Amino acid sequence: MLGFALLLVLLCALGGAEGREEVQRHGHISVVIVGGTGDLAKKYLWQGFFQLYVKEINSGNSFSFHGGGLSPIEKGKPVLFEILKAVSCPKAVSEERCAVLKEQFLRLSQYRQLKTLEDYQALSKQIEKQLQEEGMTEAGRLFYLSVPAFAYSGVSEKINSSCRPSGGAWLRVVLEKPFGHDLSSAQALASQLGNSLKEEEMYRIDHYLGKQAVSKILPFRLENKKNLNPIWNKHHIERVEIVLKETLDVKGRIHFYDQYGVVRDVLQNHLTEVMMLLTMKLPKNISNAEEVNQNKLQILSSLLPLGKNQAVVGQYQSYKTEVQQELNQTTDQSVSLTPTFAAVVAHIDNALYEGVPILFVSGKRLNERVGYARVLFKNNIFCLQDHNSVHCKPKQIVFYFGHGSLQYPAILVSKNLFKPALMGKEWMEVTEHKNVSVLGLPITDYYVQTPREQRDAYAELISHIYAAHKSSFVSTEILLGSWYMWTPLLTSLKDTFPRNYPGGADNAGLLDICLDGNDITFNNMEVIINHDQMGSSSASGFKAMQGKFRSADMVSAWTEELVETLAVDLQAAAEAAVHEEGVFHLAVSGGSTPLALFYQLVLHHSTFPWRSTHVWMVDERCVPLTELDSNFHNLHEHLLQHVKIPYYNIHPMPVQLNQRLCVEEDGGALVYERELSKMVVNSSFHFVLLGVGYDGHTASLFPGEKVNEHGESLVALTESPNKPHQRMSLTFNAINQAHRVALLVMGKGKHELVTQVSRIKDVSDKWPVTRVKPTHGTLVWYIDYDALIG
Amino acid sequence: MLGFALLLVLLCALGGAEGREEVQRHGHISVVIVGGTGDLAKKYLWQGFFQLYVKEINSGNSFSFHGGGLSPIEKGKPVLFEILKAVSCPKAVSEERCAVLKEQFLRLSQYRQLKTLEDYQALSKQIEKQLQEEGMTEAGRLFYLSVPAFAYSGVSEKINSSCRPSGGAWLRVVLEKPFGHDLSSAQALASQLGNSLKEEEMYRIDHYLGKQAVSKILPFRLENKKNLNPIWNKHHIERVEIVLKETLDVKGRIHFYDQYGVVRDVLQNHLTEVMMLLTMKLPKNISNAEEVNQNKLQILSSLLPLGKNQAVVGQYQSYKTEVQQELNQTTDQSVSLTPTFAAVVAHIDNALYEGVPILFVSGKRLNERVGYARVLFKNNIFCLQDHNSVHCKPKQIVFYFGHGSLQYPAILVSKNLFKPALMGKEWMEVTEHKNVSVLGLPITDYYVQTPREQRDAYAELISHIYAAHKSSFVSTEILLGSWYMWTPLLTSLKDTFPRNYPGGADNAGLLDICLDGNDITFNNMEVIINHDQMGSSSASGFKAMQGKFRSADMVSAWTEELVETLAVDLQAAAEAAVHEEGVFHLAVSGGSTPLALFYQLVLHHSTFPWRSTHVWMVDERCVPLTELDSNFHNLHEHLLQHVKIPYYNIHPMPVQLNQRLCVEEDGGALVYERELSKMVVNSSFHFVLLGVGYDGHTASLFPGEKVNEHGESLVALTESPNKPHQRMSLTFNAINQAHRVALLVMGKGKHELVTQVSRIKDVSDKWPVTRVKPTHGTLVWYIDYDALIG
Repeated sequence: MLGFALLLVLLCALGGAEGREEVQRHGHISVVIVGGTGDLAKKYLWQGFFQLYVKEINSGNSFSFHGGGLSPIEKGKPVLFEILKAVSCPKAVSEERCAVLKEQFLRLSQYRQLKTLEDYQALSKQIEKQLQEEGMTEAGRLFYLSVPAFAYSGVSEKINSSCRPSGGAWLRVVLEKPFGHDLSSAQALASQLGNSLKEEEMYRIDHYLGKQAVSKILPFRLENKKNLNPIWNKHHIERVEIVLKETLDVKGRIHFYDQYGVVRDVLQNHLTEVMMLLTMKLPKNISNAEEVNQNKLQILSSLLPLGKNQAVVGQYQSYKTEVQQELNQTTDQSVSLTPTFAAVVAHIDNALYEGVPILFVSGKRLNERVGYARVLFKNNIFCLQDHNSVHCKPKQIVFYFGHGSLQYPAILVSKNLFKPALMGKEWMEVTEHKNVSVLGLPITDYYVQTPREQRDAYAELISHIYAAHKSSFVSTEILLGSWYMWTPLLTSLKDTFPRNYPGGADNAGLLDICLDGNDITFNNMEVIINHDQMGSSSASGFKAMQGKFRSADMVSAWTEELVETLAVDLQAAAEAAVHEEGVFHLAVSGGSTPLALFYQLVLHHSTFPWRSTHVWMVDERCVPLTELDSNFHNLHEHLLQHVKIPYYNIHPMPVQLNQRLCVEEDGGALVYERELSKMVVNSSFHFVLLGVGYDGHTASLFPGEKVNEHGESLVALTESPNKPHQRMSLTFNAINQAHRVALLVMGKGKHELVTQVSRIKDVSDKWPVTRVKPTHGTLVWYIDYDALIG
Repeated sequence: MLGFALLLVLLCALGGAEGREEVQRHGHISVVIVGGTGDLAKKYLWQGFFQLYVKEINSGNSFSFHGGGLSPIEKGKPVLFEILKAVSCPKAVSEERCAVLKEQFLRLSQYRQLKTLEDYQALSKQIEKQLQEEGMTEAGRLFYLSVPAFAYSGVSEKINSSCRPSGGAWLRVVLEKPFGHDLSSAQALASQLGNSLKEEEMYRIDHYLGKQAVSKILPFRLENKKNLNPIWNKHHIERVEIVLKETLDVKGRIHFYDQYGVVRDVLQNHLTEVMMLLTMKLPKNISNAEEVNQNKLQILSSLLPLGKNQAVVGQYQSYKTEVQQELNQTTDQSVSLTPTFAAVVAHIDNALYEGVPILFVSGKRLNERVGYARVLFKNNIFCLQDHNSVHCKPKQIVFYFGHGSLQYPAILVSKNLFKPALMGKEWMEVTEHKNVSVLGLPITDYYVQTPREQRDAYAELISHIYAAHKSSFVSTEILLGSWYMWTPLLTSLKDTFPRNYPGGADNAGLLDICLDGNDITFNNMEVIINHDQMGSSSASGFKAMQGKFRSADMVSAWTEELVETLAVDLQAAAEAAVHEEGVFHLAVSGGSTPLALFYQLVLHHSTFPWRSTHVWMVDERCVPLTELDSNFHNLHEHLLQHVKIPYYNIHPMPVQLNQRLCVEEDGGALVYERELSKMVVNSSFHFVLLGVGYDGHTASLFPGEKVNEHGESLVALTESPNKPHQRMSLTFNAINQAHRVALLVMGKGKHELVTQVSRIKDVSDKWPVTRVKPTHGTLVWYIDYDALIG
């Protein structure tokens, strides 16, 4: 996608490519947990660092641990002491040894107030003093920022200005989500952090990457390459499901949650990471962070855009009351539309996965707590004599993150697929099972393996920070790429009413999902949401309306419905033409206006008669066709590439002849004119799709153009006030010979123009669009409400 | 497909388009069953005609029935009498009335010897005499040819020359399969019949078209259009299965069967008809025979070609012994490879069905007798809380022809789809069921409907002949189209060893099928066929071998393996180039040689990096690119159309500039040379694929060409001894700059050439192909055994 490519170009300015893994040197390591007495630190972080300490005690490195907080030392110290006392040793360590280790860890750990710049300066001085006194080399400093996101940039600045180690020791700063709430806020945050920290110094945590079943996805794919290669593609994969079901509600967290909702909370980060691990090109070296990063980016950049047809959302019943209570709202206030349940279907537009639905599902207040990723393979066996044969049962691979019916993390491969390789010594095969069923199959129908020891994700990731395994963390590129993927969906869901669900087992089939082409719906469509009950009315309730504009027909609607209507009209015109003449000649304009139409056609009009359609250009910029600002390039990327249209039916304008662009003598306009006169009966296109510019231009026919000079020509070289100035364009003469002309006008920005043009009585040189008046055909204006009403 | 289009063109000479339905006029109808005392006549035909008589007795038409046979009257008459006595009335007719009707029918029927031309002349005279005597107008004459196929043409000639009715009455001649055993024999037969009969006079019977559940396929699709339209496409259909399972063996029929096998016996006709009814575009008017015919043809013409990877075959164990007994063979003779079981997967290459496997399955000695067509829909429901929910069960529509667990013809729609419309008054819904399961679902999970009265297919078709419902019969176009589909498969299966199966329930999962992309295999691959036991060795046992030819590398193998090897080598080269340079430049030759390679790439190389591949032409004929004999057109139809390659990466040769072909001054060769110099580093293609002609030419560089005149040029206009004479071609200069050149030589016809060229020491103007000598790259000859060994 063009937009994505541009985003990546912009990123170079921000952070640059992922650095190579640093060479580790031995010495002293200072660990600083900023927010060291907070919830997360208490629950996971100190325990994780203690485990690291126990593991690395004989590694040749020495450690000191600093718990930083806003409270003064006399308040913070006892709190930290209580936390530290509670850490526990791994099973393998004897009680005696454990006591010794804990005592040492306590001695190496201390509380510090970290509030002002001076506090950080003091910390740095103390570290340097200690190094000097004990004659130690410094290996590095690790700051774990367990603080709210708004504090990241301030803390990072202080670290940058006063706490950087010297002499080649490393600095690692660990950050936790949320990293923004959409693309632009994430970009702003990334750019702020980029002022203080280098890309290789940032360790953004997504704790899913520390889950044992998740971190084995790539190794599993690698180890089982021989068995997976033939089936890991669109021909064999029915769909991929990435699911996180929770039973809890969000009571007590409404202040945070109501701003975020389930998509930002879970789908944009955790489930997206799992998706990338499942679908990315297998790196040659799975510990090469740069390669992993590039391959993940490749997947993000090949996703089809997510629109509101790719998602359904829900909200558990009591959420409304919780919002009113926690946000002190009265019942009169407009209700929250924040989804607590979402199912989203994504599609990867590459040769390997095209057409395979990737389903993301997550929700609160569901019937069970469970997380898994399932790769379901197609039912490609025909059982001739026994329909209940094991070969005809579902074939699937499940990465089971934990909880649910199994209660332990596992990788399950259905026995009708293959016997997978064991995931290293730390994993074991499970052969004795309780009587349990996993995703429709009895456990005995699977090969099952599980880690010998269940390890906490944070402890796992802390050891990866220590080892500088950057591939376990979220790079700036991936972060922004993921927001690039999710932000348009979030925008389009903004006004969507979530389906109300009772919670728990009572949900029954209410949230079942139906996949339809690239779209998704609730399977049970009988449930009608009563808008009145919801206390507000939705924009999407309106449908297209018919009217008149400049005495021609007009269709008007909200943007999406307008585009849907135009696509339906276009297909009807195409089918009629093909039925009558065996061919449909369509001429399309450049610019961004038709993009939404192209998506609509690609995604929802799979029966469009492309094989009998000829596509012509209304206008072109005088640049090579392969360049990003070529109209044809746009058309190719967003439409032609995705439909099955014969090569001969594609008619780019010959703006480049004799290795030069739009030179009068090369006669490109005449070449095009001859081509269309030859192929299109009476030079009358069946359908011409036009847009209109702010200045009233249409095609590439600009105000002040001496249209009379075009005479009887069908194609002409013209001049635009904007770069690139040179254009090739159909003339009004050609346009007005068409059977049908559609003028598509969208967006608030066009409102002023629409108002002006509506007032002009007849044709006007100042407003070229007024010259569109098909001699024998019809003109229809498609104007969205934004442009019409403002 | 080009070939198919050509076939249709040829057909015009044979029969012309299907005629419109004739206007019926009242009067006398003479029915003549040629072979009127044979098995089929005895079992079905007289009964069918009696039913027709009963139904039409008050229609205003009168009838006479003639049973013709080779025997003299004294032998034939009593046999016919016995048959006629046995006909029975429909249930609704009272016993008394039945006796009257049978008596009348007997009176109207008589035996005649029909052997010589004189016999037919006599018949005609008798009919005319009777008409005159009784003062009746003649409505028409119906000849039912219940004789072996070899007799068709003789009987038809006699009918044509001596039995045609006069004065505008119709002639209808009914024929039964077999209609040939491959495309050419079917063409020959059609052409013979065409000499005597007009297309509208021929009624080719496929009794499947008279089966009640089959004849309702189109009406069902029409009546349920609203529910089916959204799901009757590749997005929703998982696969289509058309299955005819039999429990019987072919004992006693070996003489016939061993020549035919299951594909000719069942798949080419019955199952193909069902396939067309299921997948054809719904005609506006389903009783318009011409529209039905055209829509069926459209499906046949969009099928991907069937190769040996699209079929698996089997033979029941005792077949071998039966052959030896019935054909009086000794055990030493080579065994029969005739399949008694076949499963074939076909794919329709259009926007609606592309990628949907259409599975044809039929066999003798299976576990049950049953026939059905199942449309299985995709599992597109995600059940969030209950995996056993009815919504997650299979969704399917089954046209059940009869027998099997149900024991009656029916249309079944699983309840998670929709409630279908009732198929007219003659059908009824079944709501009370015995405890039975149909194709994996309990009967109670279906909406079921069945005909109120079960009717025999022949009786049904006889009434259609009477009504001139030509859409219930097989037109010449459909017949040849179907043979066009099946003949290449039959050829490629000729030497395939069928899998041996024990028969009945013992087959268990042995014949289960696995669908893999466009291919099909037996699911249970562990069964290895022991070739020694089978008494012969198979050609396909050989694999590709490496060698030297003209001191360059050579790969040699049987044709299919050779093409497979070349495709694998080509993909490896493409991947290496894309990996190193991000792009792969491929130049391909015209001609028919590369077609097999293109199919191989399209069908079996779905991961080929087309997006990064540029395709150039080695040579082109000076004809417009859209014409059938353009090399580019060939390439487009067989390769480019089927893969996802960007528009800009396609580089046809500019043989048409300024509305004229290959005029020196237009400088087309220079245009192409400039394009390739600009895009291809050092003008060195990564891969050049060449063929070689019988005269030793390669590219379009012919013997006697003054290659020195090309100088440093990369592209030149050349002259061919064959039409069209003018060509554009890469020069040896361009070819020899390539990284890798492949020279593909296939077929016995090239053996002489291979021998000659192998003897020539160095380059020779007489043998242009000897000039292929890459300067820095490598040359590999790919020569099949036919060309190499002769």
